[in-house]
Amino acid sequence: MLKKGTRCTICKSKNLKDKAVVFLPHHRLALCKEHFINWFENRVEKTIKEFKMFSKEDKILVAVSGGKDSLSLWNALIKLGYQADGLYIDLGIGEYSKDSKEISLSFGERIRRKLHIVTLEKEIGTIPQINSSANKPACSACGSVKRYYMNKKAKELGYSTIVTGHNLDDEVAVLFGNTLSWDIDYLKRQYPVLKEENGFIKKVKPLCKTTEKESALYAVFSNIEYIEYECPFSQGASSIRYKEIWSQIEQQSPGSKLRFYLGFLKKVYPLLNQENQDTKAIKQCILCKEPSFNDICGICKLKQKLHKAPAKL
Amino acid sequence: MLKKGTRCTICKSKNLKDKAVVFLPHHRLALCKEHFINWFENRVEKTIKEFKMFSKEDKILVAVSGGKDSLSLWNALIKLGYQADGLYIDLGIGEYSKDSKEISLSFGERIRRKLHIVTLEKEIGTIPQINSSANKPACSACGSVKRYYMNKKAKELGYSTIVTGHNLDDEVAVLFGNTLSWDIDYLKRQYPVLKEENGFIKKVKPLCKTTEKESALYAVFSNIEYIEYECPFSQGASSIRYKEIWSQIEQQSPGSKLRFYLGFLKKVYPLLNQENQDTKAIKQCILCKEPSFNDICGICKLKQKLHKAPAKL
Repeated sequence: MLKKGTRCTICKSKNLKDKAVVFLPHHRLALCKEHFINWFENRVEKTIKEFKMFSKEDKILVAVSGGKDSLSLWNALIKLGYQADGLYIDLGIGEYSKDSKEISLSFGERIRRKLHIVTLEKEIGTIPQINSSANKPACSACGSVKRYYMNKKAKELGYSTIVTGHNLDDEVAVLFGNTLSWDIDYLKRQYPVLKEENGFIKKVKPLCKTTEKESALYAVFSNIEYIEYECPFSQGASSIRYKEIWSQIEQQSPGSKLRFYLGFLKKVYPLLNQENQDTKAIKQCILCKEPSFNDICGICKLKQKLHKAPAKL
Repeated sequence: MLKKGTRCTICKSKNLKDKAVVFLPHHRLALCKEHFINWFENRVEKTIKEFKMFSKEDKILVAVSGGKDSLSLWNALIKLGYQADGLYIDLGIGEYSKDSKEISLSFGERIRRKLHIVTLEKEIGTIPQINSSANKPACSACGSVKRYYMNKKAKELGYSTIVTGHNLDDEVAVLFGNTLSWDIDYLKRQYPVLKEENGFIKKVKPLCKTTEKESALYAVFSNIEYIEYECPFSQGASSIRYKEIWSQIEQQSPGSKLRFYLGFLKKVYPLLNQENQDTKAIKQCILCKEPSFNDICGICKLKQKLHKAPAKL
């Protein structure tokens, strides 16, 4: 909790009127609005450099959902001088998609950057249609579809890197889930940079060291309008339960999330990837030519199931 | 929750009057009193064999605290035909120690097995004295002192193995704590068998696959009186917070504790121990000759601090 009248850790000596409005217990920082914005952008910049994500020469594509994370990230990247356009995937989830598309488009106009749109209904079917046909949990099917079209479109449009707004809370929840079951195959891939290989474009997560709350505050202080409600299908998702558990852990011991996530990256990730161990061979889908573990990729199979024609070659 | 009138999974066809009194959701078992006792003892026996803990020829020493775990374990070991005596360490913690010692002694008499007693006050000082002088958290100092005297006394008394009552909940809480900080040195040693080496006697945990609740039920059904309240120093210990978190996880997804613990043993423990990596060299304490990482071991240093003479050679 921020005590009333606390001064900003950065500007306290310069301007006594600038009171802190944000307290980050795990960084022991109290910041005014201006210095919080600076801090957030610096942290994004440092994360990009620390993990060698991309440079100012790269043409990058931000996966934009209309939520606080992706819009804050896009905004910060533009302010930092990166060449970042946006990609919005219209999932066809009623009001949720309608609102988030509108918000994303108007944000793109505000920062004068291109926002590409993929409309799932035209490509394969809406998420509600897919959910009623797929055997997977809603979020899992939606994740596969989004990853597929992000990868495909980014390549078609000539971008070098896909940038997603996954934040520390997201990464901790996923890492936690994979740790509870010690799912080594997933743990081996949990890194904020996935390099380009086998038809997969490079994918990076510059918000991996900032929290959900920090994205939200950055959006609010930067006057970014974002969609505040969650996707209606996400209710009851295990990631939400894990986030609740982690909010308890973090409250009792500030810094726990960062320690858990960064400790994994530093100490365990290298151990899991130390040898060129057997990894499942990646082929090309015979229908759409996208990378796949099987002859026909999951998305083309899903299309067939949805009674649509296979992807055009 | 056990529905009223549920029949025991084992004896339902034999005796319709024997209603189940225990439901174990993670094993999908509903059991009557008699078959729960059988189930518990079988599970202990299987765990002993699975991890090659000891055989019926070995003289083993059970670390007895007077709680449900150690007394249930001792009882089960005797019923299974093992040569198990007890070791009680009187920590000198007021009523708690007085009550638990009395309970342990009378249980030893009931099963007609020797209970050795170590009185910390005579050896080094009581836990309250140590806590007021040590710089460590209460449970950490107490743990070190107990491990030291268990090891020393078991060797002096000619036992081959120390058997402790750590249950699945204990192991999960410790594993969880070490995972949150990815403490590789501790994770490398988290196994239900620690072999004899460098002056350390073999140490095993036959209850690692049964829960706290299962020990308690076994004690109740076997008419074992045990000390029901916790050590007064344990309040606020992180292990208690972790147990609360795990009780939420387990309730939402029965079997999570076992999956987390056994998954670690199977998939991660071998990975961490795959090479003879640098391990800190173990020497002998120059004062007490017990194993130590330094010239003088932690217990002898503590003794010096408590203004007592160093351990006799």
